[in-house]
Amino acid sequence: MHRTKVRVVEEALDANNTIAAANRADFDRAGVRVVNFMSAPGAGKTMLLERVIADLDGVRAGVLEGDVQGSMDADRLAHLHVPVTQLNTDPGFGGECHLDANMVRSALPSLPLDDLDLLVIENVGNLVCPAEFRVGEDARVMVCSVTEGEDKPLKYPLMFRTCDLVLINKIDLLPHLEFEVDKLLYNLDAAHPGVSRMLVSAKTGEGVEAWRDWLMRVPVPANA
Amino acid sequence: MHRTKVRVVEEALDANNTIAAANRADFDRAGVRVVNFMSAPGAGKTMLLERVIADLDGVRAGVLEGDVQGSMDADRLAHLHVPVTQLNTDPGFGGECHLDANMVRSALPSLPLDDLDLLVIENVGNLVCPAEFRVGEDARVMVCSVTEGEDKPLKYPLMFRTCDLVLINKIDLLPHLEFEVDKLLYNLDAAHPGVSRMLVSAKTGEGVEAWRDWLMRVPVPANA
Repeated sequence: MHRTKVRVVEEALDANNTIAAANRADFDRAGVRVVNFMSAPGAGKTMLLERVIADLDGVRAGVLEGDVQGSMDADRLAHLHVPVTQLNTDPGFGGECHLDANMVRSALPSLPLDDLDLLVIENVGNLVCPAEFRVGEDARVMVCSVTEGEDKPLKYPLMFRTCDLVLINKIDLLPHLEFEVDKLLYNLDAAHPGVSRMLVSAKTGEGVEAWRDWLMRVPVPANA
Repeated sequence: MHRTKVRVVEEALDANNTIAAANRADFDRAGVRVVNFMSAPGAGKTMLLERVIADLDGVRAGVLEGDVQGSMDADRLAHLHVPVTQLNTDPGFGGECHLDANMVRSALPSLPLDDLDLLVIENVGNLVCPAEFRVGEDARVMVCSVTEGEDKPLKYPLMFRTCDLVLINKIDLLPHLEFEVDKLLYNLDAAHPGVSRMLVSAKTGEGVEAWRDWLMRVPVPANA
């Protein structure tokens, strides 16, 4: 039973990788760097984008906003006069809990790729399945809020293991939490030794300058 | 494309419901009430259980602990001398993002059902897919932390629409957040008009007494 299930998933991921490569080719043709931006619900992805996306020193950025339903986050970002496309994953039942390469591909015609240098794809809030599906990105960034506890790298290892940068958000709340940053960093290094990390607060702006700098110079992947 | 996908999902949910009914029959035979306990990662499910599960005034409770990997939460609860069974959803790739009826069924032989009055199934931390899969429960409880923002009922409507009780957790942090409880309640009533809700803090214990009382008298579903 489990064996069959794994094979079905492997086939689905294989198809996904084929479409991700097609997306990648389109991004390369247009000269666009792409970030797959992930986190649990409410960790602060949209606010961290609001902080920097309109002010990237000449880097022309756009956003593809993934949600089960609604366009609240897209509306927040559109106020900043950044090109934003909404992608909803709800086809009538509970909705998909992640973006896959084909969903992203379906949105490409509505994105002004030739006018962009950077595309940030804000994934559905979820620490499991978004990590399983490449969408053609150059880099993966995840947000981990200090209100979620120190154990998350151990409980959701694939997400932490496959990302290129971890933004540890809401550090303004540290004085009010029983949260040990060192314990989180220890668990983070257990899941993904040495991964880049930044302590930030979208609310106070602490650490946001480093996040902006990183986004302006999204690293090219090692296999590019 | 979408149509086919919906049909596949409908068939999967149909099979799931068949197995959920078999679980339900086993729970009824043993006289066990069952709660499907759900939230985003880090919202405080385990701590809310730690607060009450060993002290339910004669109600003999057990826990089925669902995680992608590891047994940290199960270990925390086992310290309270409550029967706990760990169910991991990771069969070799990224892991399943939810429990379904068949996974729960696979764990039933290791649960002392005849010695229990109440079984709490702590689902994988995720606001999307856990809501789609019935597992044979009497009631669904979700935890929504105030650190996640007021918009979650609008972004993850199925989860909020299908639950019987919403625990609004971490209210001890309200003085330090730009969070309006009234706005959350407004959005909650938009998703699920009149659903039972409790303001709680697992940390300070505020509101926990009402949660304990509710758990001791899990409502029988209307169709029972």
